[in-house]
Amino acid sequence: MESMMIYMPIALAALGLVYMLIKKSWVMKQDAGDGKMKEISDYIYEGALAFLNAEYRLLAIFVVIVSIALFAVSVFVETTHWLIVIAFIFGAVFSAYAGNIGMKIATKTNVRTTQAARTSLPNALKVSFGGGTVMGLGVAGLAVLGLTGFFIIFYQYFMGGIWTSTGDMTIVLETLAGFSLGAESIALFARVGGGIYTKAADVGADLVGKVEAGIPEDDPRNPATIADNVGDNVGDVAGMGADLFGSYVATVLAAMVLGNYIIRDMGGNIVDKGFDGIGPVLLPMSIAGVGIIISLIGTMLVKIKSNDAKEKQVMGALNIGNWVSIALVALACFGLIKYMLPDTISMKFFGENLDDAGKAVPVVIDSMRVFYATLVGLFVGGVISSITEYYTGLGKSPILKIVQQSSTGAGTNIIAGLATGMISTFPSVLLFAGAIWSSYALAGFYGVALAASAMMATTAMQLAIDAFGPIADNAGGIAEMSEQEPIVRERTDILDAVGNTTAATGKGFAIASAALTSLALFAAYVTFTGIDGINIFKAPVLAMLFVGGMIPVVFSALAMNAVGKAAMEMVEEVRRQFKEIPGIMEGTGKPEYDKCVAISTKASLKEMMLPGLLTIGFPLAIAFIPMIFGMDNLAIAEMLGGYMAGVTVSGVLWAIFQNNAGGAWDNAKKSFEAGVEINGEMTYKGSEAHKAAVTGDTVGDPFKDTSGPSMNILIKLTCLIGLVIAPILGGHAEETQTAEEVNKNVIQVNVEEAAKTDVALNVITMKEENL
Amino acid sequence: MESMMIYMPIALAALGLVYMLIKKSWVMKQDAGDGKMKEISDYIYEGALAFLNAEYRLLAIFVVIVSIALFAVSVFVETTHWLIVIAFIFGAVFSAYAGNIGMKIATKTNVRTTQAARTSLPNALKVSFGGGTVMGLGVAGLAVLGLTGFFIIFYQYFMGGIWTSTGDMTIVLETLAGFSLGAESIALFARVGGGIYTKAADVGADLVGKVEAGIPEDDPRNPATIADNVGDNVGDVAGMGADLFGSYVATVLAAMVLGNYIIRDMGGNIVDKGFDGIGPVLLPMSIAGVGIIISLIGTMLVKIKSNDAKEKQVMGALNIGNWVSIALVALACFGLIKYMLPDTISMKFFGENLDDAGKAVPVVIDSMRVFYATLVGLFVGGVISSITEYYTGLGKSPILKIVQQSSTGAGTNIIAGLATGMISTFPSVLLFAGAIWSSYALAGFYGVALAASAMMATTAMQLAIDAFGPIADNAGGIAEMSEQEPIVRERTDILDAVGNTTAATGKGFAIASAALTSLALFAAYVTFTGIDGINIFKAPVLAMLFVGGMIPVVFSALAMNAVGKAAMEMVEEVRRQFKEIPGIMEGTGKPEYDKCVAISTKASLKEMMLPGLLTIGFPLAIAFIPMIFGMDNLAIAEMLGGYMAGVTVSGVLWAIFQNNAGGAWDNAKKSFEAGVEINGEMTYKGSEAHKAAVTGDTVGDPFKDTSGPSMNILIKLTCLIGLVIAPILGGHAEETQTAEEVNKNVIQVNVEEAAKTDVALNVITMKEENL
Repeated sequence: MESMMIYMPIALAALGLVYMLIKKSWVMKQDAGDGKMKEISDYIYEGALAFLNAEYRLLAIFVVIVSIALFAVSVFVETTHWLIVIAFIFGAVFSAYAGNIGMKIATKTNVRTTQAARTSLPNALKVSFGGGTVMGLGVAGLAVLGLTGFFIIFYQYFMGGIWTSTGDMTIVLETLAGFSLGAESIALFARVGGGIYTKAADVGADLVGKVEAGIPEDDPRNPATIADNVGDNVGDVAGMGADLFGSYVATVLAAMVLGNYIIRDMGGNIVDKGFDGIGPVLLPMSIAGVGIIISLIGTMLVKIKSNDAKEKQVMGALNIGNWVSIALVALACFGLIKYMLPDTISMKFFGENLDDAGKAVPVVIDSMRVFYATLVGLFVGGVISSITEYYTGLGKSPILKIVQQSSTGAGTNIIAGLATGMISTFPSVLLFAGAIWSSYALAGFYGVALAASAMMATTAMQLAIDAFGPIADNAGGIAEMSEQEPIVRERTDILDAVGNTTAATGKGFAIASAALTSLALFAAYVTFTGIDGINIFKAPVLAMLFVGGMIPVVFSALAMNAVGKAAMEMVEEVRRQFKEIPGIMEGTGKPEYDKCVAISTKASLKEMMLPGLLTIGFPLAIAFIPMIFGMDNLAIAEMLGGYMAGVTVSGVLWAIFQNNAGGAWDNAKKSFEAGVEINGEMTYKGSEAHKAAVTGDTVGDPFKDTSGPSMNILIKLTCLIGLVIAPILGGHAEETQTAEEVNKNVIQVNVEEAAKTDVALNVITMKEENL
Repeated sequence: MESMMIYMPIALAALGLVYMLIKKSWVMKQDAGDGKMKEISDYIYEGALAFLNAEYRLLAIFVVIVSIALFAVSVFVETTHWLIVIAFIFGAVFSAYAGNIGMKIATKTNVRTTQAARTSLPNALKVSFGGGTVMGLGVAGLAVLGLTGFFIIFYQYFMGGIWTSTGDMTIVLETLAGFSLGAESIALFARVGGGIYTKAADVGADLVGKVEAGIPEDDPRNPATIADNVGDNVGDVAGMGADLFGSYVATVLAAMVLGNYIIRDMGGNIVDKGFDGIGPVLLPMSIAGVGIIISLIGTMLVKIKSNDAKEKQVMGALNIGNWVSIALVALACFGLIKYMLPDTISMKFFGENLDDAGKAVPVVIDSMRVFYATLVGLFVGGVISSITEYYTGLGKSPILKIVQQSSTGAGTNIIAGLATGMISTFPSVLLFAGAIWSSYALAGFYGVALAASAMMATTAMQLAIDAFGPIADNAGGIAEMSEQEPIVRERTDILDAVGNTTAATGKGFAIASAALTSLALFAAYVTFTGIDGINIFKAPVLAMLFVGGMIPVVFSALAMNAVGKAAMEMVEEVRRQFKEIPGIMEGTGKPEYDKCVAISTKASLKEMMLPGLLTIGFPLAIAFIPMIFGMDNLAIAEMLGGYMAGVTVSGVLWAIFQNNAGGAWDNAKKSFEAGVEINGEMTYKGSEAHKAAVTGDTVGDPFKDTSGPSMNILIKLTCLIGLVIAPILGGHAEETQTAEEVNKNVIQVNVEEAAKTDVALNVITMKEENL
């Protein structure tokens, strides 16, 4: 049984994908409404495909270039095999395909949601959340399927399917890193390119349509309106999907790398349990696999009964699904850790329990501490959403303050929004810092990686909740464009309002996942290179910490400027159509939607080049330029580590700042729709204060939809590139130790003995005092 | 002669102060104009004194509390003597007194500049720059006088005026750190409190005066107008003065600490030159002393001849003075290093040239490399100003882009300004990173500290240029309020325009000085505590790096919110006066200027409490809370180091971002005054685009005058607090080595021998290859 566990995750992933297909066919069977609705929906669908196809063409070129580079790496570096190229290509293809599934289902579900809203709210929720479920299970299923599938292949290929040594497993995992790199590369295109697309289309549509021509939002006379609706899907569905796909894969991979070092620290061989002796490596995959089925169960719980339900009930239904998933993952972690890990495991705690030569000696810990670390991860996932909700939620005090400050003009509104985003870093960073510290104190960097893995186990559920938002948003747009009865719009508006909240909390989850993923990758990087840690008292390392800290700031600026440039191209196209197409304003002339889609597509992909280059180019330059000048490889590895830390710390800060500021401005503006009390007077849309709030939202849009979410990709991709070039820098010095040499140093304590003697307990107690 | 060098810096400082007094009496003898002008000037002078007095009262309480805490530290920690309390009090008093001199002379010079502008432009420059010179020499002179004076006293008291050991010198320098802490504490009050004051008064005056009552800026009918003018002096004169006073002292102190370790690495005793064997410790003080005289010479070169001169000629005159000063400092550094340092010195390069036990062994380097490091510092000081000028200067491409983006509204103006500030971090951070790396590669952290010392040597000149701006600004205000002929305002406007540029470049210099000072303090901290560096691969250290990175963001938000709150109190007071004082709008009723001054004073000091508490409280909490829980002191020291690095990296980024964004918005708005071309059309004040630019400036004001400059204090004070509590954490383990033990390890190479053998050259070559 134990030896079959390697096939468990892939089986569960396949099961999840089968359920996804069933759900998909159910959604597709729903009524897609009448002619006008269907027509609009088809435009959006075709626009989305147009973007995807353009993206794929660009991607193909990118994949070829990187493949050649990776092949070159595999030729020169012993621990990297050319199969990394295959893994990379499949990682890219799987992620792209997952995005494709998501986009297609989202653009097919929107109109079906509108149609369902004509009958009842529970039906509308069922259809829209059904679409989200397809997206969530598709992404998570493909992620786990691909990663575990390649692991099995490489494990067979390099090790013959039985444990040989830590060194061989390193080759397996290093080759597997290609899959993760492929997935994250797609995320760069989808998140950054998609982020630019969605805002360029949005700003372009609003600037000419609403402001210049004075027609309402989502008006079919506006040539950019389809591009705008496509943008919602490109950014929030495909972008978020690729982001979480990348996090999911990278987290599990990093945990596997660190699990391999647990085996090393236990003497190079685990004998007391089955699992071919690779329990700590299999564990993260197993949690990911079980997480898919748990998420599947969670999605089944999301339903409402009453047609008179309001936002609160809909939100409650989503929350039940979410919290049950989290609780089940905790249970599953407990069971899997009990089942798969030895009762005690050994690991090195960096810079602690040193021998005479100043090297860390592994410490024996109860493996239940790994379980506690997973609880830390689940806690972070839950709490970060609450923090995000507090700083960006309608009716919360930060939003009311921004509303208040809108009464004295756009300037004070902007200052209040910026300050809100900035202050929101306080609880978020303390939460992350506490999570790093406590999960490390519990179970070293393996604990940090497992915390991230546990949090990511509910990815399918998170994505279902996330993707449901833009579907509902689109459904509302279609209701507007096809001139449905007000009750339809009212129902989709309820879903849309909930979707706005889940969009904000989903962003919080994505940041947390990116932060923990990067930390896990960072830990895997240091262990891979075999350096003695990253000492920022060395001037070159400190210099790189500065440079790394600067990159997210510059990246954000480039992304914001890109939106501006792409939006300007869109504005000109819309103006041209208004001028040149006869009868367009009277509704008799037909706008050329496809041209606007094409412009947004082209501009967004063009404008993402520079920030993309910055992301990929800097770590490569830091690694290879000093190498050309003959600098010591380990010194370079340490510098690159400093750079990675700088990017991560600064990137997380700027992600929180920009996302929450953007979310806060958005909801401050929305507050005026229902009316707000300012200085004792009710104030509504159209007031001066509302205009100030609209200005704030204009600034917030690229913050929350382009530059903010891009930070996730920036920090993960930076750390992944580091991990992939790690073997070039590090000699894997420690792995050449034989098992005997390792055993000599390890404090090998049997559990029964530990209970009798005080040695192990003292070691643990000492550790706890220190932490 | 050599043994008298210890008295040289104090003598030069005294000489500078004497010249300052002469210059001061010259300025005071200038014609102060007629009744109306004098009356307004007296209001500003009294308002400034009112702020200072209120600040001093609060300061006195603060100084008493900190003194008690420091006394407690000195009781418990062996290497800290209770005299640190005296040094602290004097540091605070000297810095406060320097601020006092600056404020007084600035508020006396303004009216004299207006009067001089009635005769000619060269005269106006002579008077206003004369006032700046008094300020610059006062600050720099008192800084050097205090620091070197206390060094002499402590050197006599603890060591009897002759070299004994590195350990004894550590006690001297640790006690001297109190002086630096005192100075930086004043900077906290002056820069943060002053920053809040100046913007609260400005916003309050504009919001009611310009917007609600429709009267022009600087109109004497506006009750807040005096507070506004006081604010210019409080923020730009006293704040900047205290900031640079603090940097000056801290840089020299850090360089002295690191110089002490050079002596240790040379075997604990330098025999081949005089200077009582403390050449490396005296060198930074000597550079500072000579710098005062050089700056004095530099200020004499600032003059113009033609009455028809424009901004360019005035700027040119300032540049000549500045560049000559920098060149002379380079020459002086060469001479002093040749004279005071042995031909070769030994120092440890962290993590390099390790012995078998993994400890760094000192490397012998040519002391000319210390000189090259000072050149790096001077280069940074010059280039950072150019970078700042590029991103914020009138007519430069980033400003033109913001102007362009103003045509589509406030939203796009804000995005463009934010993006400009963000992108400006790119060259700035690369410059700093390059400076850290190269000065370290040249001469270790002693090189970094000396680079900072050399840059700071022109402090008096920099401050003279800086203080001249607000004086000219005030002079223009007085000309307006006292209804002078247009030619007077034209002349003061020329000076004011130049002052705006120097204000921006001065801020760049202040950031660079804060960054390099913090790095030097950081290096001194690590050396003081005796830890093996700061390893961010340890989870608690990494967690603190995150927390440290977050602090500047939250601090900035608190500072911005403080401005908002203080401004609101001002708005209410001005509204009350307009309503209650009869005839105020007709000019027959007299506004109660003092009440506005009092409100601004009280509000600013109240609102700076929270950010101040954050600055001081966090490092203390990180040091002492884990200590209560029994955590290992060296582990805490490393965590605190991680925190310091996080604050410094993030603080420098946010300082550059906020200062440059603020400066850019300001000049984008000013561009409209002369008219700008947008889409082929000339656009002026009052246009929609101009209104958008005004909104941008509203956001930029607290950025560039409150939160941005506060970052300097935050990062320096954080590192200083770390330095002061360092001995509590570290055991000064290494210092207990005897000279013999050290000598055993040192590669002692005589220069003549080095030329013959290849040993030393190989060592150096090896090093250069590694870096």
